[in-house]
Amino acid sequence: MTNIAILGFGTVGSGVAQVLTDNREIIRQRIASNYSIKYILDLRDFPDSPFADLITHDFDRIIHDPDVTVVAEMMGGSHPAYEFTKACLEAGKSVVSSNKEVVANFGPELLATAKTNHVSYLFEASVGGGIPIITTLGQDLAANRILSVSGILNGTTNYILTRMEQDGMAFADALADAQSLGYAERNPSADIQGLDAARKIAILAAMAYGKMIPVESVLTEGIAEITKDDIILAKELGFTLKLIGHATCEDGKLLAMVTPRFVPQASPLAGVNDVFNAVLVRADMLGDSMYYGRGAGKLPTASAVCADILSVIRNSGSSPMPDWADASEDELMPLEDYACRNCFIFSGKDFRAEKYFEPQKLSCDGELTAAVSPRMTEKDAMRIEQEADPLFVKRFRILD
Amino acid sequence: MTNIAILGFGTVGSGVAQVLTDNREIIRQRIASNYSIKYILDLRDFPDSPFADLITHDFDRIIHDPDVTVVAEMMGGSHPAYEFTKACLEAGKSVVSSNKEVVANFGPELLATAKTNHVSYLFEASVGGGIPIITTLGQDLAANRILSVSGILNGTTNYILTRMEQDGMAFADALADAQSLGYAERNPSADIQGLDAARKIAILAAMAYGKMIPVESVLTEGIAEITKDDIILAKELGFTLKLIGHATCEDGKLLAMVTPRFVPQASPLAGVNDVFNAVLVRADMLGDSMYYGRGAGKLPTASAVCADILSVIRNSGSSPMPDWADASEDELMPLEDYACRNCFIFSGKDFRAEKYFEPQKLSCDGELTAAVSPRMTEKDAMRIEQEADPLFVKRFRILD
Repeated sequence: MTNIAILGFGTVGSGVAQVLTDNREIIRQRIASNYSIKYILDLRDFPDSPFADLITHDFDRIIHDPDVTVVAEMMGGSHPAYEFTKACLEAGKSVVSSNKEVVANFGPELLATAKTNHVSYLFEASVGGGIPIITTLGQDLAANRILSVSGILNGTTNYILTRMEQDGMAFADALADAQSLGYAERNPSADIQGLDAARKIAILAAMAYGKMIPVESVLTEGIAEITKDDIILAKELGFTLKLIGHATCEDGKLLAMVTPRFVPQASPLAGVNDVFNAVLVRADMLGDSMYYGRGAGKLPTASAVCADILSVIRNSGSSPMPDWADASEDELMPLEDYACRNCFIFSGKDFRAEKYFEPQKLSCDGELTAAVSPRMTEKDAMRIEQEADPLFVKRFRILD
Repeated sequence: MTNIAILGFGTVGSGVAQVLTDNREIIRQRIASNYSIKYILDLRDFPDSPFADLITHDFDRIIHDPDVTVVAEMMGGSHPAYEFTKACLEAGKSVVSSNKEVVANFGPELLATAKTNHVSYLFEASVGGGIPIITTLGQDLAANRILSVSGILNGTTNYILTRMEQDGMAFADALADAQSLGYAERNPSADIQGLDAARKIAILAAMAYGKMIPVESVLTEGIAEITKDDIILAKELGFTLKLIGHATCEDGKLLAMVTPRFVPQASPLAGVNDVFNAVLVRADMLGDSMYYGRGAGKLPTASAVCADILSVIRNSGSSPMPDWADASEDELMPLEDYACRNCFIFSGKDFRAEKYFEPQKLSCDGELTAAVSPRMTEKDAMRIEQEADPLFVKRFRILD
């Protein structure tokens, strides 16, 4: 019998309690073992919940109870989630987490602490909600060198872009729509400005390359400046505009970025719509593979937290874990070295893109000229932007 | 140091040797452990191969070598692959396999043998090539009740259907094209008639429900009868025609089938083209998730075999495994109880589908009438087919 403690009885925490209870029979069969939720830590009381009796406000009860061997941390925010996680690991309890902020900020340290104490620190639910992308990178693709990871990692922004594309909505209207449906928070800036996706791509980069890039070093652009015209132009040129988290490593230099990108319509990412998330992994042996599903929500996220809990139980606390180090300054790729295809947009029809590169596609409507470039470095792309000034309007990177 | 034996040095076997060699450094880091290929069993010699020295024709050398703890079986066919697998497990060696025929025919017995002998029997590569769908169902979705599994499980037939759809080719021309590119074998019947996909959906059903359906009990239809007109009609009605393996379980009754189906264009399966495979899993907590990638080929399949080898090494031979029983006759759903939407095609324009059901979509071109029905049982669908005789032409099930 494994005793579990839940930290945080919000949306995900209550989902975990529900999944472990509703599917108890089928789970017990699969793991050939039994479990029980012993404590639920929250500041609030929940007198009407079927779990009311398990609520405690006192973390010390959990940390000092030797019966509790698995702790599920779903508090959100860095503090005190980080301190509680560290204390649990040091007390010899495995921790599973949906908290991307803690994983992105303290992942290497917490993994090392877990290792030292012969317990597990798992965080499948921190990226992509219920999509099993962490296990996939850590275990299923373990024989591959990862060439790149590209994902639609934020459901709110993907919903907004889908509404703008499919229904011709303006950004503000699509945002209001997302808020009215509960897909966007009242203060949506962490989603809209790309910070949520930046934390997630940093975690995926660490899974792929073993080094954690500081979130401040992730080039992060949101979608607040995206217009209907950008989306129409993308379509005209054979692309779909998506907010893409992208990580790669070349010659030992890591790069992670979150930017609106033009995705070729034949890419499996192009058809990922509404609140769905998907991660496309390019690996040397497997080639391209993609993982698609609900990137947020109570039960999908709880599904991933529970998978980690079951992994800890099955492996008696020693589930496979990655080794992460913090990426040092000289392991980061300077942005100017990053290369991809680009779509440049210039005002008017007079800018001669041919002077700079052989355009692969060109669109001129009198007011704007859009030119798709071959693969070029950021350095070259920025040089073109400068030389075209004041005709240069904007540039979208292309995901190939 | 783990010593590995490879059984079968064909396409996949040589791929496994290559992956383990080429990516040795990165793999060693990830699993924090070293390994070596000690034997490669094959009837042939490979004097020009870098692995020539490891070739043996004598299985007894492997089975009697206590240093060998992991055996990768990639021989194909049921015999002697089954006997070798059983002998290795009984000798206390873990076995990983890409051999869907052995898994589909002897899976429950071999899993039990592995369990008795405290070793692992893993077969990620038996379905979906390099796509990690076996681990996903067995571990990542372990907290979910699986409602259905639906997949494009055969790259050859998906390539043919894609050419027919995108280039307007006839079936025979698309097949010849696939053969010229090496995507289809000279005798392509196991692919074309759906047998390959039937074995794979039986394995996925066992992962989802714990019961192995005999392949003879999987309703299996191929694509040899599919015409360009079927594909055009599907498109007109908002669908894409795909060969779909589908498994479900209702009230304890299991059903698995491989049939050409109309897939709604908004489904993530609709955009899976060429030789790519994908599996869509519908689960009670996670909702819909999809796993996409290369379902065949030397290195993608080797990637999955190697993932299993690394799992065995990391878990010292006790990787998580499912418990399977053979499904008994009364655990199988009678086909007539299965329910889905259907597209009925009648000759002429005189058949009044409205007499039988409220059509959700209707297409009449004078020569044919196509009517999309609401969800109905096979029993009701077959009654309509009979009553419409001789006007009834064919029926496609719809995947919702």
